[in-house]
Amino acid sequence: MPDLPSPGASYPVTPRNKVRRLHERARYDHASVHAILDSAMLCHIAYVIDGMPYCTPTAFWREGTHLYWHGSSASRMLRTQKPGLPVCLTVSHLDSLVLARCGFNHSVDYRSAMCFGTAHIIDDLDHKARALDAMIDRFYPGRNAELRPSTTQELKATMVVGMEIESAAAKVRAKGVGDEEEDYALPIYAARFPVRQVIGAAEPCPRMPQGVAYPPGLAGFRDGRRLDEIMLESHHRLYGDTTD
Amino acid sequence: MPDLPSPGASYPVTPRNKVRRLHERARYDHASVHAILDSAMLCHIAYVIDGMPYCTPTAFWREGTHLYWHGSSASRMLRTQKPGLPVCLTVSHLDSLVLARCGFNHSVDYRSAMCFGTAHIIDDLDHKARALDAMIDRFYPGRNAELRPSTTQELKATMVVGMEIESAAAKVRAKGVGDEEEDYALPIYAARFPVRQVIGAAEPCPRMPQGVAYPPGLAGFRDGRRLDEIMLESHHRLYGDTTD
Repeated sequence: MPDLPSPGASYPVTPRNKVRRLHERARYDHASVHAILDSAMLCHIAYVIDGMPYCTPTAFWREGTHLYWHGSSASRMLRTQKPGLPVCLTVSHLDSLVLARCGFNHSVDYRSAMCFGTAHIIDDLDHKARALDAMIDRFYPGRNAELRPSTTQELKATMVVGMEIESAAAKVRAKGVGDEEEDYALPIYAARFPVRQVIGAAEPCPRMPQGVAYPPGLAGFRDGRRLDEIMLESHHRLYGDTTD
Repeated sequence: MPDLPSPGASYPVTPRNKVRRLHERARYDHASVHAILDSAMLCHIAYVIDGMPYCTPTAFWREGTHLYWHGSSASRMLRTQKPGLPVCLTVSHLDSLVLARCGFNHSVDYRSAMCFGTAHIIDDLDHKARALDAMIDRFYPGRNAELRPSTTQELKATMVVGMEIESAAAKVRAKGVGDEEEDYALPIYAARFPVRQVIGAAEPCPRMPQGVAYPPGLAGFRDGRRLDEIMLESHHRLYGDTTD
């Protein structure tokens, strides 16, 4: 993947997002960055308060080159930062454990994306309502239309944060075991263990009235399926099969 | 889990690690924080360069109240920061998707831990060698003894970073669907989808000589097993079944 050409639009390479360590694994094109983002539900957000770093996991989603997230503890900081808060939003997928013939070549296969920008609170209630509807449908196709509508009180109690991606970098390792040429002959066990995040069978709420059907929009949520594949499908259902 | 008493030692609660949002989900005791850390291989590390936040995923491990990690891009920053670099190291496990009867009550079950401290480069070669041996054995029991020993050149090319945990907070949600009392009667599908990260069957390196046996230390690395359980077992194998 790191050796393929990069068609389409790319994020600018700046001192902030330029990958320095193992830079041959880096990609800056929208398609590579967005595919990693859209395959995830959770990200980790780094931000600075009084000069100190914080790293918070939260649910997020992408709309074009804009990212949204929800209920971060950075929110209280944002209230007092009128120009917005610089953040780094990172997504990572662990794809395998790599056991090589020496400690130095032990590794993991992974896909990760770091996105840099300035976070703003979405205060406008209409914008916030649209964003939250999109959030639900982005994860669970068609679900929003099935729900009890949000109350104004619920809308006001929810923090939605938005950020335009100013720069971004993806980093991918997908090569499995890679050892020094002279080490392959050694009688040492070496292997790749694939890793995947999967969902289990739905556990329906026991307090549902009788006769409530399984929603057709959740047809893809089958026992044992990879969450990254489900999330990417759900994103395509709402926003189309586009990486820009 | 958030309602249980907290036996044993705890991390101090300071303005930095005090959980403000949904604080009823917070735990500060070593046992809760360490169990979340020891069940993971990857963390996300937030740090500040020139006032801007960065968030990097990397492999890490715990030894007592000390954390170590490896090859972070924060390393180049650390070289110039003699007093050390403040970081926030965060681990999160996604345990389920929670689909409720309104958007507001959609959620996820999760376990997360945030650890605050000051990172230092481990430059002493003996200390670094011991740390890297521990890293391998912490993930893969007994593996270090089976490997081709590291060369001095490999040791020098590897960055190891250490940090004493100054404060920490764990946050756990494990309640599945929770709706407003008046919403349970609505004819809306609600369910919890469990999420788990699992390993697949080993894919042995095709360049191994004939007759290399599967290492007994990897007996727990079986197709379909949860990675968090494997990681916790491996940690116990090296450091004992202790949470302090």
